[in-house]
Amino acid sequence: MAVVALLWAPAAVAGADGAAPRKASYGATVGWAIAIHGGAGVIERGSLSPETDAAIRTTLSAALKAGEDVLAAGGPALDAVEAAVRVMEDSPHFNAGHGAVFTSAGSIELDAAIMDGQTLKAGAVTGVATTKNPVSLARVLMERGPHVFLAGAAADSHAKAAGLAQVPNSHFMTERRRRQLDSLKMHGQGAMLAPGSRTDELRFGTVGAVARDRAGNLAAATSTGGLTGKAPGRVGDTPIIGAGTIADNRACAVSGTGTGEIFIRVRVAGQICDRVRFGGQDPEAAAAAAIAELGALGGDGGVIVLGPEGDGLFAMNSSGMYRARASAGGSRETGIYADE
Amino acid sequence: MAVVALLWAPAAVAGADGAAPRKASYGATVGWAIAIHGGAGVIERGSLSPETDAAIRTTLSAALKAGEDVLAAGGPALDAVEAAVRVMEDSPHFNAGHGAVFTSAGSIELDAAIMDGQTLKAGAVTGVATTKNPVSLARVLMERGPHVFLAGAAADSHAKAAGLAQVPNSHFMTERRRRQLDSLKMHGQGAMLAPGSRTDELRFGTVGAVARDRAGNLAAATSTGGLTGKAPGRVGDTPIIGAGTIADNRACAVSGTGTGEIFIRVRVAGQICDRVRFGGQDPEAAAAAAIAELGALGGDGGVIVLGPEGDGLFAMNSSGMYRARASAGGSRETGIYADE
Repeated sequence: MAVVALLWAPAAVAGADGAAPRKASYGATVGWAIAIHGGAGVIERGSLSPETDAAIRTTLSAALKAGEDVLAAGGPALDAVEAAVRVMEDSPHFNAGHGAVFTSAGSIELDAAIMDGQTLKAGAVTGVATTKNPVSLARVLMERGPHVFLAGAAADSHAKAAGLAQVPNSHFMTERRRRQLDSLKMHGQGAMLAPGSRTDELRFGTVGAVARDRAGNLAAATSTGGLTGKAPGRVGDTPIIGAGTIADNRACAVSGTGTGEIFIRVRVAGQICDRVRFGGQDPEAAAAAAIAELGALGGDGGVIVLGPEGDGLFAMNSSGMYRARASAGGSRETGIYADE
Repeated sequence: MAVVALLWAPAAVAGADGAAPRKASYGATVGWAIAIHGGAGVIERGSLSPETDAAIRTTLSAALKAGEDVLAAGGPALDAVEAAVRVMEDSPHFNAGHGAVFTSAGSIELDAAIMDGQTLKAGAVTGVATTKNPVSLARVLMERGPHVFLAGAAADSHAKAAGLAQVPNSHFMTERRRRQLDSLKMHGQGAMLAPGSRTDELRFGTVGAVARDRAGNLAAATSTGGLTGKAPGRVGDTPIIGAGTIADNRACAVSGTGTGEIFIRVRVAGQICDRVRFGGQDPEAAAAAAIAELGALGGDGGVIVLGPEGDGLFAMNSSGMYRARASAGGSRETGIYADE
């Protein structure tokens, strides 16, 4: 857990003369970029069947493309992160929307947030039970207010009034996640929050995206079902601006996934941006330091980080993270294991 | 709103030779200290009757004493902030516990948080309806977990199971606050969130405390009813670690009060601590800068801040803040208006 894997650090960009590559300096325009994640945790090689591995990569690629299409057409980063997250919310492979984990009561309660790095406008929801795409509800709150953050039935009522698609709670349920809850109940609740426990797979799968558009604006969005067997009413880090989600053009955009309770206490996303903004640290150094603090308190997980220039980067202290990224320069990749 | 009033900046302390006063340098032990607030907003001289002015000061003094007694006896900062906040929760003069503001539905929903600067443990609740002292429920979550943050009926159930005093929702209701809701409904919801509106008085009254104990540990706690006429389910900044509440021995402890939606977006409390920790700023400069950012986005309110040494300080961009502070050195004061 003490080991922090830093993947895909910002690529060197060509100098003004087009020749010697140089380290990106903040402020230069380098075009659009996007990075997404579908959760981090104990994902060892061989633990996924070839079919599951392929299906997850296909969905990651589709989510990435939804965001890329927006950005390549000159659209806003906000639209890109919302589009990418919606694809993962609708997929059964991730712990968000359809395919989310169960609470201890056998229900599904969803959290989501979105933030605009240009205006610092934000929207967040927790305990969503009937709104098909929680990230779009967060977007509605961000756009229309008056509140930034709504909880529970009031959030779903707000979505309904705004015309967002409503579904029965059973829409989100999958047999795989129900078996995970059953397994957890058999092995005891205590195992749930123990770091490195064999139930690690139960805890992760949160999805998120960070993007920078042609205008240089940053945005971030995150969506999750939380952790298997969580108490109804539990609020995780995902909807907390500065814990699991943040975007600030002056610093960076971050979406996190992992041990939510520790993400809240360490304020992982906000700490990364503040290390950049007030401490003058590079995003990769800032992300590594924040993940190290997470680990020191017994937490694990990872973040995707995107600065005012350069490609997205990933930092984690877990053995895997479902992830993908692309940028205007033409790079495009998906990954699962820490060593790829 | 652009004017930031900084009150009670850290006092100069005597040098090692006991003669020349010097600016406190961080790291030295200067004994215990506590600062509390009962909300900030438009509080002009003459707007309070002499009786109300006196009653508020008396309650502030009693809340301060509850914290002082703990600290003077060598008790932990956590106990001090919880004790001080409980006194204000039980008083009808502040927007927390008994005397809290009404939601648009005519109910009372309470938010609270507490944090330990030594361990970074935290607890938070939102939408509490029947637990007499929400800050103590936050403390129970902090101590026992497994979750940091609970919302709604689940939070009250958790409190009941933990043996915390339960009351009917009507326990929190006062005629004065009901009239404020009626007045708001007459003048329209739109006026509620407009900065500088005549309904300012409806918005504030959040209570909070920050303390440092003899061992040098920091703690913070905040409790509120939110804002008059808020939507049921609205989560404000108070229970969000890094927005309205934070404690971190490496930086400072902060409790905020004001336009909750903007406090969330600016991450006021966390930003102050991160400016200190990563930017090397003094707590007073950090607080002034964060309040200036709050104001730039149309927000108003104030914070109490306490560092590893020195007395508590207050920063606000409003015309008044109910506040008090004391320290081991024997200083003790209460204040309401910005100019006192």
